[in-house]
Amino acid sequence: MTDFQATKALFDLPPDVTYLDGNSLGPLPAAAPARMARAMTGEWGEMLITGWNKAGWMDQPAKLGDRIGRLIGAPEGSTVLGDTLSIKVHQALAASLALRPDRRVILTDSGNFPSDLYMAQGLIEQLGRGHELRAVAPEEVEAAIDEDVAVMMITEVDYRTGRRHDMPALIARAHEVGALAIWDLAHSAGAVDVDVAAADTDFAVGCTYKFLNGGPGAPAFIHVAPRLINQVQPALSGWLGHADPFAFEPGYRPGAAIARMRVGTPPVLAMAALEAALDIWDGVEMADLRSASLALSDRFIAGVEAACPDLALATPRDHAARGSQVSFRHPQGYAVMQALIAQDVIGDFRAPDILRFGITPLYLDENDIDRAVEVLAAILRNGSWDRPEFHARAAMT
Amino acid sequence: MTDFQATKALFDLPPDVTYLDGNSLGPLPAAAPARMARAMTGEWGEMLITGWNKAGWMDQPAKLGDRIGRLIGAPEGSTVLGDTLSIKVHQALAASLALRPDRRVILTDSGNFPSDLYMAQGLIEQLGRGHELRAVAPEEVEAAIDEDVAVMMITEVDYRTGRRHDMPALIARAHEVGALAIWDLAHSAGAVDVDVAAADTDFAVGCTYKFLNGGPGAPAFIHVAPRLINQVQPALSGWLGHADPFAFEPGYRPGAAIARMRVGTPPVLAMAALEAALDIWDGVEMADLRSASLALSDRFIAGVEAACPDLALATPRDHAARGSQVSFRHPQGYAVMQALIAQDVIGDFRAPDILRFGITPLYLDENDIDRAVEVLAAILRNGSWDRPEFHARAAMT
Repeated sequence: MTDFQATKALFDLPPDVTYLDGNSLGPLPAAAPARMARAMTGEWGEMLITGWNKAGWMDQPAKLGDRIGRLIGAPEGSTVLGDTLSIKVHQALAASLALRPDRRVILTDSGNFPSDLYMAQGLIEQLGRGHELRAVAPEEVEAAIDEDVAVMMITEVDYRTGRRHDMPALIARAHEVGALAIWDLAHSAGAVDVDVAAADTDFAVGCTYKFLNGGPGAPAFIHVAPRLINQVQPALSGWLGHADPFAFEPGYRPGAAIARMRVGTPPVLAMAALEAALDIWDGVEMADLRSASLALSDRFIAGVEAACPDLALATPRDHAARGSQVSFRHPQGYAVMQALIAQDVIGDFRAPDILRFGITPLYLDENDIDRAVEVLAAILRNGSWDRPEFHARAAMT
Repeated sequence: MTDFQATKALFDLPPDVTYLDGNSLGPLPAAAPARMARAMTGEWGEMLITGWNKAGWMDQPAKLGDRIGRLIGAPEGSTVLGDTLSIKVHQALAASLALRPDRRVILTDSGNFPSDLYMAQGLIEQLGRGHELRAVAPEEVEAAIDEDVAVMMITEVDYRTGRRHDMPALIARAHEVGALAIWDLAHSAGAVDVDVAAADTDFAVGCTYKFLNGGPGAPAFIHVAPRLINQVQPALSGWLGHADPFAFEPGYRPGAAIARMRVGTPPVLAMAALEAALDIWDGVEMADLRSASLALSDRFIAGVEAACPDLALATPRDHAARGSQVSFRHPQGYAVMQALIAQDVIGDFRAPDILRFGITPLYLDENDIDRAVEVLAAILRNGSWDRPEFHARAAMT
């Protein structure tokens, strides 16, 4: 059984803050500053160039990839770290289109995160071969999977509503018609119980700064099914994906298995922070996390619905149909969220009217949930959100 | 006049080390650990998600880009930070081929860094439109520029020999025949006096972990000529290159000017280290740095040639024809370098026979140069390099 009071003690959250935005940026692991200081002074400062060997920098993308792999059901050696999620989406899409040269459709849903859509649009434009990005309503994805589809690219959990797709079913359906599947785990890794191997997905991609708590701008990861990886000819064929990077050969030869999805020099300092975050995850069973997440989410929903009649639940009530965030709609949601943040209950807002709350059992307990409900209810009851300062928009929220 | 004794005091080098590998990984700026600690605890830890606005994380790629821009002669607003150099090479190549749809040749030289060649090969394969990567000998580049060339992609300074191309002349010649130019500054930025605006290059790309001292795996940068940027349709069209990323529109619209070359979420922690490194650069005039670099290089060459008859200079003697590294050939170069490193004089080795020494006036002075010569001469004189432990190959050197 995972001990969530123990994991909570491993984070350094400001004492007065109730943090419900771990779905956007996870908080600081208490051990991360010392780990980073060691990377700065003990590794970079002391070892200089020899850190690549002595401190094992070069192997970190594979090692950390495997530790994330355990959390998503990926076998060892099938997940690697690097770049950003947008780049990993490009890699998976480019590989998929190359593997299905006679098909022209990238199928996605209209609720997908925009960067996934943008990366597909950029790739289609670049290829100039008449591919189509077909974005259907989330509930219509399954029916839209047909033999025109080269690849289905789906973000499991909707970033606004928290609605969760039945990925195993969608992937099975895609495979029935010979399509490939890309599973975007941005709001799944560290949030829900994912099993990429059982679902037999072709590709999975995700970021590490949300539920995994790797720090702002932490690197992304990609998993490729072992049955498929040797057929993948990387479009972003950087030197660290080469079979022998330090031979400096003139011609590209893809590296063994997942190593070929590496591109450039790995982000050593960022990986140090992520490593500290993954130390916490090593003690967590995802099934326990999922149970705790659902219990806290249910408690939050019940509390808010009892105390805040002006809020409408945007997240599905069905456990199977939601991730690890709870969203409510309010016509003045932006101002309500700013008022909440001003009282140190931190969630975020997504246009036009969504208040998002990340539910993260690693560092949130029932008291946090109850405090959030209480503060939110008071703000709505007394109308204190309706002040000019709460309507002023910041650059990024 | 830049005060190089003052800049030397701003680095934390191990006291016994003579570091001649700043062309591969620059050393730790003394202020970087505190800057990073602030990013970890004061920003990520305290501000959590609000750091994107409050700590200015979102603006850092443009701000740091401009500070690098000053060092390479780029006007404000034409340089941006992010990703790795391999990704930036892909962006520049993809944009170039799209801007020259009727041409099929990417021209480069056989001494270019392999990742640049690999990225071109991957892109050509991905596009499947019969493009050709034409790699000629370095001295034949100018003659090979003809009207078949869509884009010339040249790394100014050869990573093995330190040989430097006359980039303004090559770029002018490329433009004469309607070709575009990509200038890879990996071994130029912070190393030699570069003026991308005066040379009127179309693209320039570079990394920040070598001469700029940004730390292991620090992010890359790209500059695009202001006259050209609005014609660039980014192939890697990520959300942070969108005109309005936080509007979460379904369709990609490129951001204003250089902002469109951003892709995914910026590497906040890595940028904190780089910021501390650029604080040092803010006090440096590149003309002074170039003079100091040439003086130290000449001193090193003269010293080694006088004391080490077994070494053959691989770097051009002509000042205009070299960057800021000095390379010598030795048939047992690998073992010689390991013996040198064992005595805390750190350079590196590139197959088959090259000993590389980075000349970095920011933290190297005449005493360092003289010590390196002395130790190298003693090792060669007494044959102490010829021991089994110095022949054993490490994974990366």
